[in-house]
Amino acid sequence: MPYVNIKITREGANAEQKAELIAGVTELLQRVLNKNPATTVVVIDEVDTDNWGIAGESITARRARGQ
Amino acid sequence: MPYVNIKITREGANAEQKAELIAGVTELLQRVLNKNPATTVVVIDEVDTDNWGIAGESITARRARGQ
Amino acid sequence: MPYVNIKITREGANAEQKAELIAGVTELLQRVLNKNPATTVVVIDEVDTDNWGIAGESITARRARGQ
Amino acid sequence: MPYVNIKITREGANAEQKAELIAGVTELLQRVLNKNPATTVVVIDEVDTDNWGIAGESITARRARGQ
Amino acid sequence: MPYVNIKITREGANAEQKAELIAGVTELLQRVLNKNPATTVVVIDEVDTDNWGIAGESITARRARGQ
Amino acid sequence: MPYVNIKITREGANAEQKAELIAGVTELLQRVLNKNPATTVVVIDEVDTDNWGIAGESITARRARGQ
Repeated sequence: MPYVNIKITREGANAEQKAELIAGVTELLQRVLNKNPATTVVVIDEVDTDNWGIAGESITARRARGQ
Repeated sequence: MPYVNIKITREGANAEQKAELIAGVTELLQRVLNKNPATTVVVIDEVDTDNWGIAGESITARRARGQ
Repeated sequence: MPYVNIKITREGANAEQKAELIAGVTELLQRVLNKNPATTVVVIDEVDTDNWGIAGESITARRARGQ
Repeated sequence: MPYVNIKITREGANAEQKAELIAGVTELLQRVLNKNPATTVVVIDEVDTDNWGIAGESITARRARGQ
Repeated sequence: MPYVNIKITREGANAEQKAELIAGVTELLQRVLNKNPATTVVVIDEVDTDNWGIAGESITARRARGQ
Repeated sequence: MPYVNIKITREGANAEQKAELIAGVTELLQRVLNKNPATTVVVIDEVDTDNWGIAGESITARRARGQ
């Protein structure tokens, strides 16, 4: 019955990669905690780099500085 | 003062249906727990079918298989 | 497949009331958007009144002032 | 190590304003709780006015009534 | 920079299992999307079975029926 | 109408500090985006150090190593 929310910056993750995240985290919860895959829900949110901050500044600003 | 977040796949819910969800959940919280509708907040997130997984695969993949 | 998160202050909601919220919101999503109840997930978070703020102050402070 | 999620309606906040929110909340957590800015994460979600409800109706409906 | 929130029912996951979830999901994001582990944040929420619903009823009620 | 969720590790933040966070973030949203404080909601989640991970390990493990 787990629910997993994965937030990443919107920088080109494709459908295959998202499918791999969904499969991988579902398998992880089954292996570690014996959770039923049939009711494991995964939601991926892609967030614009202007809307994500770390260390007090946006990812957009960090990317512009080459980080 | 409740806060409710409803996540659904982005598959064509229209403004009338969203309004009905907002009104319905606000009424439910007032009826069951006597919560004040004036400060009940509802946020609906619509999620691409590539980004929603259940049973280890994306909704896109399930829809393609006719589920 | 919807996922619903309901946040309320921790002020004595009992198991019957929580069950009524779970049943009610699941029914609402089926009625309005034809969502499958079998995969509708509802999670209720109860939050201490010190940890919930509105209008710039905590619910604890508001309750102490009689609001 | 804090994680902060700010949800606002999508009504034209620009990159400079978002950067100011990110910097401001990071500084607040450092000042009040001595949290390390280097690992403070801020995510801003902008939500369509159809998808945000208060007092049982959408923001779209409220704006249309002049509120 | 990813942020991952894992919600499970509070049914005895121990510190070793939680550490395994944290390590596993961080490794998954590095492998699939080349995300930097140093800034990958994972938060695990454990939810009382009264507060988690699926198929319109609480996990507590389902467990009592032997599911 | 903003909604802000602040997640921190459970390490002794007191009611006065939480009140300062609530007041500070509400003021910030008013100053930067002219958001109405009366309907600004802030929810603070305190998370056990076993349940919070960064860089692939729990905060508990990091604290034990003196970080």
